[in-house]
Parts: sequence; C-alpha cells; structure tokens
Amino acid sequence: METKKTYKVFRYGSEVRWGMHRRGSICSSGKPEIEISSPPEFKGDPGLWTPEDLFVAAVNACIMMTFLAYAQHKGLELAEYESEAEGVMENVEGKYRFTEISVRPHVVVKSAEAISQAREIMESAHQNCIVTNSTTAEVKIFPEVRAT
Amino acid sequence: METKKTYKVFRYGSEVRWGMHRRGSICSSGKPEIEISSPPEFKGDPGLWTPEDLFVAAVNACIMMTFLAYAQHKGLELAEYESEAEGVMENVEGKYRFTEISVRPHVVVKSAEAISQAREIMESAHQNCIVTNSTTAEVKIFPEVRAT
Repeated sequence: METKKTYKVFRYGSEVRWGMHRRGSICSSGKPEIEISSPPEFKGDPGLWTPEDLFVAAVNACIMMTFLAYAQHKGLELAEYESEAEGVMENVEGKYRFTEISVRPHVVVKSAEAISQAREIMESAHQNCIVTNSTTAEVKIFPEVRAT
Repeated sequence: METKKTYKVFRYGSEVRWGMHRRGSICSSGKPEIEISSPPEFKGDPGLWTPEDLFVAAVNACIMMTFLAYAQHKGLELAEYESEAEGVMENVEGKYRFTEISVRPHVVVKSAEAISQAREIMESAHQNCIVTNSTTAEVKIFPEVRAT
C-alpha cells in the first residue's frame, strides 16, 4: 500500500500599528517592538526599518538560517557568516515590485577541507530557503567561502 | 512623437550576521540592529524575530504604508490603523513556502462619510502594495473600517 508523507503546516503572526505621518511599529507576542517608517524617498524618516528593508532582510536571514540548519546537520564547523543583500525594486507593467535580490554571503569555515562542503550547503540553502521560495523576485547568490 | 514614461529604480540593502547556534542579527546603516533567530520549531529561541515573521510583517507593514500614502493624497482623516497578519507556510511539491497571508486591518476614520473612501483606498493599497506584488503567497485582506 502506498503511504503518502504528510507535512506540517506552520503559521506566523504579527501586528502592525500606525504611529504618526508615515511611521508605525511592528509587534509580535513576546518579541521586541520594531519602529518602522516608509523609506525617505516615499516621505518617511531615515534611520528606521522600512517594509522594503524587512522584505530584503527576510530573504537574506532565511538563507542564513537554512544554511545554519544544514551545516549543523552535516557537521560543518563554521567560524563566521555574514551576508549583504540588496533588493532592486522596479516598475513592471505599471506596478512596482522587487525584481531581483542579490545575496552575498561571506562564510568562514574552520578547515580548508570544509570549503567545498560549505559551497554545497549554500547551494542547498538557496534552493530550499522558505522565504526565497515565497518571492517572485529572482534571488541571486554570490557566496565567498574561505577557511580560518 | 510617442513619449514613454520612465520609472525610477530603487535599491534596498542590509546585512545579516551570525551570532551563535540559530541566532544572529540584521543591520542596515544608521538603523537599530534587530536580533533574529530561527523559529523555536526549527531549533531557534523564542522571543526573537524570525525570517518568517519579518516576511509576514513586511507584507502587513507595506500595505499600511501604501494605505497611509494614498490616504494622505486623498485627504482622508485617519484616527487609527492597526492590522494583524498571519502567514501560512506549507509544503508544496516538496518545498516549504508561504501559500497565504491573511491581513486584518482595523481602521478608524474621523467621520462616517469617510468609511467608504477608506475602503476604496484599502483596496488600492492591497492592489499596489510593493511587497504583496513581490510574493507568490496569496495575500487576502479583511478590513474593518469604522468612524470615531
């Protein structure tokens, strides 16, 4: 008899509240409140996280968390991980949306032998990142991996 | 001679850094650092923002900011705006992704006459939200609008 694998469903909730002008905050039970604004180019205040920033950061952070999960599973000894991301927002057929997000992870592993393993794990993380798989933007990854 | 409208291109950059275990932080020049974690169900620590949370919050916050921009443009007098959002993450053909995000804005306007205008603006905000237009998840909106 064929058995079909069943997968869990997960739910993530949070709240946004308007403050004044183009500012507000995001909250989620038990988590620190984050003050947000529209970007300065859309009449918001500088120095605050914007929805656009949070979207790009979510992609970048999700790739890192997926990498960390796979690295731990495979026993990769990691020394450092930091990653820049930039999202490009363009008008496509009359509507603005993110068309491309470039992610540049700088990964340091604890031995030269682990470099190729880290590259493979990065590729899997890119392919299986939940947030990446939830975007219409093309997510491009440019990893740099070196040993300590 | 036909003139073609040209649209600006915008870029949003930020950085993510690994801390320890399944934790790290997101940073962007001049903005407060945000500590992040994998969700507890993926071996992260509770009480911290996760990439999944940030993604759902980005959709919710972008709808609010789009609403605020249109409301100001149309002269709508707004008293309150808060909105809950919940994202559903499911396995689709072997990969997890967000399939649906439900957004529930509670809007209070300063006069009964402004209720229908606020509903129209909400519909435009839903249609033109940049982050919504950058997701493969179906974004459903359930607005509640009342007067003070």
